[in-house]
Amino acid sequence: MCTAQYYIVVEDDSLIQDLVDAALAEGGFENEIVASGEKAVALLQGAPTKYRALLTDINLKGQLTGWDVAKRARELNPEMPVIYMTGAAADEWPSHGVPNSILLNKPFAPAQVVTAVSQLINQAPPPKE
Amino acid sequence: MCTAQYYIVVEDDSLIQDLVDAALAEGGFENEIVASGEKAVALLQGAPTKYRALLTDINLKGQLTGWDVAKRARELNPEMPVIYMTGAAADEWPSHGVPNSILLNKPFAPAQVVTAVSQLINQAPPPKE
Amino acid sequence: MCTAQYYIVVEDDSLIQDLVDAALAEGGFENEIVASGEKAVALLQGAPTKYRALLTDINLKGQLTGWDVAKRARELNPEMPVIYMTGAAADEWPSHGVPNSILLNKPFAPAQVVTAVSQLINQAPPPKE
Amino acid sequence: MCTAQYYIVVEDDSLIQDLVDAALAEGGFENEIVASGEKAVALLQGAPTKYRALLTDINLKGQLTGWDVAKRARELNPEMPVIYMTGAAADEWPSHGVPNSILLNKPFAPAQVVTAVSQLINQAPPPKE
Amino acid sequence: MCTAQYYIVVEDDSLIQDLVDAALAEGGFENEIVASGEKAVALLQGAPTKYRALLTDINLKGQLTGWDVAKRARELNPEMPVIYMTGAAADEWPSHGVPNSILLNKPFAPAQVVTAVSQLINQAPPPKE
Amino acid sequence: MCTAQYYIVVEDDSLIQDLVDAALAEGGFENEIVASGEKAVALLQGAPTKYRALLTDINLKGQLTGWDVAKRARELNPEMPVIYMTGAAADEWPSHGVPNSILLNKPFAPAQVVTAVSQLINQAPPPKE
Repeated sequence: MCTAQYYIVVEDDSLIQDLVDAALAEGGFENEIVASGEKAVALLQGAPTKYRALLTDINLKGQLTGWDVAKRARELNPEMPVIYMTGAAADEWPSHGVPNSILLNKPFAPAQVVTAVSQLINQAPPPKE
Repeated sequence: MCTAQYYIVVEDDSLIQDLVDAALAEGGFENEIVASGEKAVALLQGAPTKYRALLTDINLKGQLTGWDVAKRARELNPEMPVIYMTGAAADEWPSHGVPNSILLNKPFAPAQVVTAVSQLINQAPPPKE
Repeated sequence: MCTAQYYIVVEDDSLIQDLVDAALAEGGFENEIVASGEKAVALLQGAPTKYRALLTDINLKGQLTGWDVAKRARELNPEMPVIYMTGAAADEWPSHGVPNSILLNKPFAPAQVVTAVSQLINQAPPPKE
Repeated sequence: MCTAQYYIVVEDDSLIQDLVDAALAEGGFENEIVASGEKAVALLQGAPTKYRALLTDINLKGQLTGWDVAKRARELNPEMPVIYMTGAAADEWPSHGVPNSILLNKPFAPAQVVTAVSQLINQAPPPKE
Repeated sequence: MCTAQYYIVVEDDSLIQDLVDAALAEGGFENEIVASGEKAVALLQGAPTKYRALLTDINLKGQLTGWDVAKRARELNPEMPVIYMTGAAADEWPSHGVPNSILLNKPFAPAQVVTAVSQLINQAPPPKE
Repeated sequence: MCTAQYYIVVEDDSLIQDLVDAALAEGGFENEIVASGEKAVALLQGAPTKYRALLTDINLKGQLTGWDVAKRARELNPEMPVIYMTGAAADEWPSHGVPNSILLNKPFAPAQVVTAVSQLINQAPPPKE
C-alpha cells in the first residue's frame, strides 16, 4: 500500500470540486484537481502511468471540453477509466463519449462517484509501471 | 448540486428503516421513508419525476406487496431503478421481480445498499425533469 | 448429444410460428410450438425439466398473456431462460417482464431469435435432470 | 413481420462487402450497402428511423472516416447500435469509438457479424416509428 | 438484521489486514481475518454456509496459495464470491483465477474493496442456511 | 480477409467433433480438431498467436484434462477465449474453470457453439501478430 494512486479530476465549479474531492478522499483515493482541460492534458502527458482514472466535467473554461480530455487520456492510455460528470451535456454522451465510460448526471450523490471509480478500476487490467 | 435527489424507501421494520436511511444518507442520498406500499404509490403518482430510485421490502402491512409497488413505479417511469430487500420472499424474485432490478437478501450490510443504488443510477439515462 | 433438448414457443400467428420454428431448427434446437398460454403451461407443468427455454408472444388468444406464462415457467424453474416476442406490448416489459429476460421487438430477423436463445442458455446453470 | 428492417453497411472493399452482405442476408437482415461515409450520412439523415444498426469500416475513400459516420448516426439516433469493422485502426477504438459499440477485428468470420448485430439489437429499446 | 454475516479475509501483511478490515467494518461487514490459507480452509470446511465471501492475498506463508484457497472455497460452495488482492501475481489471474471473481491490484483504495464485495454479493443467489 | 483464423477444438468423441466442426465451419471459422490435450498444448506452444479461441471437452483420453489445457492456453495468451464443452464435469466449472470462460452443457445445439465463440472473440482485444 506504499505507492500512491492518483486520480485526475477536471472541474471548474469549486462546489463540485469539493464534493468530489471529499468523496474520493473518504474512499481512499488521492486526487489531483485541476480547473481546465489544458492542465489535465499537461499532467497526463507528463506522467502517463501515474494516474489511474479520469473524472471530468464537460463544459470547461479553456479551449478543451471534457470530451476532448478523455480522448487524449485514452490515446495516452487505452485502458484509462473515464467518468464524465455533467448536467447540460448528458445527451451528447452517446455520440461524444468514449467506449466503456460512465456518465454521472448532475446533481449526483458522493457515493455515486466512489462506486463509479471503484467499478471501473476493479475491471481494469493492472497498471504497467 | 442544487437540486435535491429523492429516493423512496418502503419498509415497515423500523430497525431496517434506520439502517437503510443512515447508509443512504451517508452516501449523500436524500430519502423519503414510508411504511406501506399504498403511501409509496401515492408519492410516486403525485410526483413521477421527483424520485430517482425505489427500494422496497416485499411483505408490507397494507394490501400491496413490494412486487406490486415496483410494477406501479415502472409503469410511471420505465427507467426507474428498483431494489428489493427481503429475506423470506427472495425465491419469488425470478417470477415476480421486474427486469434490471437488484435483490438484496436480508440481512445485508449498509454498503450493499449504497453500492446497489449507485450502480443502478449510474446506468440509468438522465431523468427528464 | 443423445438427449433431445426442447424449447417451447408460444405464438398464435402462423407466419411468425414458421419463421421462429425454421430459425431455431436451423440452429439445432428442437421446438414444441403451441398457440395458447394454457397449452404452454400444461406442457411445462407436465414435464418441468424437459424444456430449456421459453419463447412467448404477449397477446395470445386464451386467458393467459405471455407475461403470465413466463411467470408460471419461472415458478416451476427459477432459472428458465425467457424471451418475449412482441410489437405492441414492448412498453409493458419494464413493469411486466421477469428478471434476466430478453425482449425481441417485432419484426425481428431469424438470427436475433437464435442469438437470444443461445446467449441465455449459455449463461444458464446445467439443467437438473 | 411485414415491416422491412434495414441495416446500413459502409465498406469500400467489395470482397468484405460481399461477405458481410451474405452473412447478414442469411441471418434475415436487409442491408443497404454504401461505399462512402458521405452516402451513409445522407441515407441516415434522409430517414433517421429507417435503419436499425450501422456497420462501418474505418478507413473510407471520402472525407469522412467510420468514426465520423458513427458519431453522426448517434446524433440522429442516440440508441443506434454501432459496429466497427477494421484491422489497421483497431487501436484507435478506445479514444475514437462511441459508447456501447462493438469492434470487429479484420479478418472476422461471418458468424461474428451476425452475432454482434443480433446482440446489440436485442438490447436496444424498441424503435420509435 | 439479526443474523451476522461473516467474510473471510486471508492476508499475512498486517498493514493490509488493517486497511481491509477497517474498510469492510465501516461498510457493515463482519470479518474473520486469518494469516494463512490453511486456517481459511479449516474455517470454511468447519462451517461452509457461515461465510458469504472470500477475500484472499495470493502469496501466503503456508503451503497453500490464494489460488488454492479460492478453489477449495468454490468446491464447498460453488456460488461463493471470490476477490483476489495482489500486486506481484496479477498476471496469473487469467490462468489461475476462478470464474466470476474480481482481482484487486495492490495498492488499492478501501472503497475498491467495499464495492467489489458489495457487487459480488448483490449478484449472488440467497445463501442456503 | 486474407489471413486465416484458426480455432482449436479438443474433443475425443467423433460425433461431437463432427457437430462442432460443421457448426463452426458454417459460421466461417477454420478449425483444427485434436483428440487429446497433449496435442492441443503442442499446437498452442508451437504457434501461440495462430489460434483465436479454444474449445475443449473436459474428460480426455490422455493425462491432461480440459481444465489443464485451458490453463496452459491462458499462460501462453492471457486473452485467449475459452469454451468448455461437458456434461459430467459441469459442476467443477466454478472451481476449475478460468475467468471469463463459457461452459456449454452437453447436449448443446450447434448455434450455441457459434454464438459462444462469436461473443468471446467480439469482446477480445485485437490479436498481436
